[in-house]
Amino acid sequence: MKKLVGEVARVVSDALTGMEAALPEIRVDHDSRVVLRATAKDPGKVAVVSGGGSGHEPLHGGFVGYGMLDAACAGEVFTSPTPDQVLAATTAVDGGAGVLHVVKNYTGDVMNFEMAAELADAAGTEVATVLVHDDVAVEDSTYTAGRRGVGLTVLLEKIAGAAAEEGRPLDDVVRVAETVSAQGRSMGMALTSGTVPAAGRPTFELADDEMEIGVGIHGEPGRRRVPLAPAAQIAEMLVEPILADADFTGAPVVAMLNGMGGSPLLELYLMYGEVAKLLDRAGVRVERRLVGDYITSLDMAGCSLTLLRADDELLRLWDAPVVTPGLRWGR
Amino acid sequence: MKKLVGEVARVVSDALTGMEAALPEIRVDHDSRVVLRATAKDPGKVAVVSGGGSGHEPLHGGFVGYGMLDAACAGEVFTSPTPDQVLAATTAVDGGAGVLHVVKNYTGDVMNFEMAAELADAAGTEVATVLVHDDVAVEDSTYTAGRRGVGLTVLLEKIAGAAAEEGRPLDDVVRVAETVSAQGRSMGMALTSGTVPAAGRPTFELADDEMEIGVGIHGEPGRRRVPLAPAAQIAEMLVEPILADADFTGAPVVAMLNGMGGSPLLELYLMYGEVAKLLDRAGVRVERRLVGDYITSLDMAGCSLTLLRADDELLRLWDAPVVTPGLRWGR
Repeated sequence: MKKLVGEVARVVSDALTGMEAALPEIRVDHDSRVVLRATAKDPGKVAVVSGGGSGHEPLHGGFVGYGMLDAACAGEVFTSPTPDQVLAATTAVDGGAGVLHVVKNYTGDVMNFEMAAELADAAGTEVATVLVHDDVAVEDSTYTAGRRGVGLTVLLEKIAGAAAEEGRPLDDVVRVAETVSAQGRSMGMALTSGTVPAAGRPTFELADDEMEIGVGIHGEPGRRRVPLAPAAQIAEMLVEPILADADFTGAPVVAMLNGMGGSPLLELYLMYGEVAKLLDRAGVRVERRLVGDYITSLDMAGCSLTLLRADDELLRLWDAPVVTPGLRWGR
Repeated sequence: MKKLVGEVARVVSDALTGMEAALPEIRVDHDSRVVLRATAKDPGKVAVVSGGGSGHEPLHGGFVGYGMLDAACAGEVFTSPTPDQVLAATTAVDGGAGVLHVVKNYTGDVMNFEMAAELADAAGTEVATVLVHDDVAVEDSTYTAGRRGVGLTVLLEKIAGAAAEEGRPLDDVVRVAETVSAQGRSMGMALTSGTVPAAGRPTFELADDEMEIGVGIHGEPGRRRVPLAPAAQIAEMLVEPILADADFTGAPVVAMLNGMGGSPLLELYLMYGEVAKLLDRAGVRVERRLVGDYITSLDMAGCSLTLLRADDELLRLWDAPVVTPGLRWGR
């Protein structure tokens, strides 16, 4: 295994220590492994909490900050955070206006966030939950009933975070989040597997001349393995299933071409160029774009495409200031 | 070769097409392969121009924008831009106050920027040049006489760009840039080689149980190959040569823990945590930090450390607003 790590059992807590040293704008509750804003909680503001397995950085801890998340729970690598972690995060950030849980659709995450929400509710904190299940690749998967939650999580955390920052009440933040969840779709692909530090070898094996279309962010099987193809054909294999699943014409669209962690930015820009041509040809009007590593799968080489059908309200929330380690603009 | 590319001969131009599609805030002169700000040039402002071989993204094109570069020339992968490219960039952005060339110390880059500067000068544009040569690993290398220019380039482009944005005259921007160049040091390491698309195989071979200490950003040999070691020991191998080469105590320091492209952000945070402990123990007062992929070597796994001995002026310029795809804060 070739990794920049110390004791593999301590990878996540060591990374959180480094993250706190690197980023004065966040603080870390090391006992609960929760990343929080360094500023005090904001009474009267809805708090937005997310989390999940580690290994997808900058998601989720890197999206804690003004205009996005209030807290993120870091599970072990590719492992759901415990209900205790989620409860600690929820309690820490509740400012009296309620808490939104943003949950990617994996069985463990759904169960543990639900348990935490019940415990928080019993203790007097109002919690609402929005589920992200945007991956059009497969219905049901290794760790999931229904569709997996992937790239749309980034867009949803940004937009719901902006709504919360405006001081909107919980039911309105929930409505915005549900709209995003309903109107976004993703599709991913892998050239190589990532390697979980504690496993010490790639999660799956791909021959030198093949790639996995529809791969999950934990290396879960996708739709099919196909021979390696040029970027233009890979772009088709990402765009077509998304456009076949939902209508992205007649409205402004937010597009994210996301790197899985091991692909150079040079290649991600190149891929976005191919994707942009196809979307243009299909009459999809892309108004906002993100290209880079936002929801990764450790060092997996590959990429995913996420499209969100937006409207004026969602675009305005997208454009609102955000100040996090992973996403930052507007102030 | 497993890459997100089309025709390998067109990798750079295809990536520039995608970059332009992804980033409305930049525009690309495709004939000259120059990345420019989308806004018109600013008469009376010193223009800052850099460039070099592609494959180090976000450097340099991703640092074009308010408060940093005015233009960046994209050479072929790991290949110096031609004098014509540099001249086109210089002419395009000259607003009458002169142009600063930021050049990483590689023989081809130095020669081609020098030739372009002479041509620009003959045509009436005042050009000054600052050389970056911060890599303490080796004296002379595969493509270099003297020390290689690496991570400090990012910090220098930020700080010189801020000085130019303030409207300072060319000689003052040069003074600031020279100060940064004199007061910064870097050291890198690799777990694996990156792969140049046109070559189709890794630039160098490392056994499964070894790593290269002092590697260059094109895969040039470093100081030595050593057995794979835990992050804490890797951190020592980066910190010690830097602190042995220059004094970083008694002044505020800017630190960058840079990913080479193939290492997950989780590991970079973890590495920064180890580096921070050592710097603290050595009495180095880190006041500003960057952790992430800023100057990469395609998909090389590994990282580098850069330290800059700053002062109040440099810190203030560091904190000034910057709005580029690769670095953004303050507005």
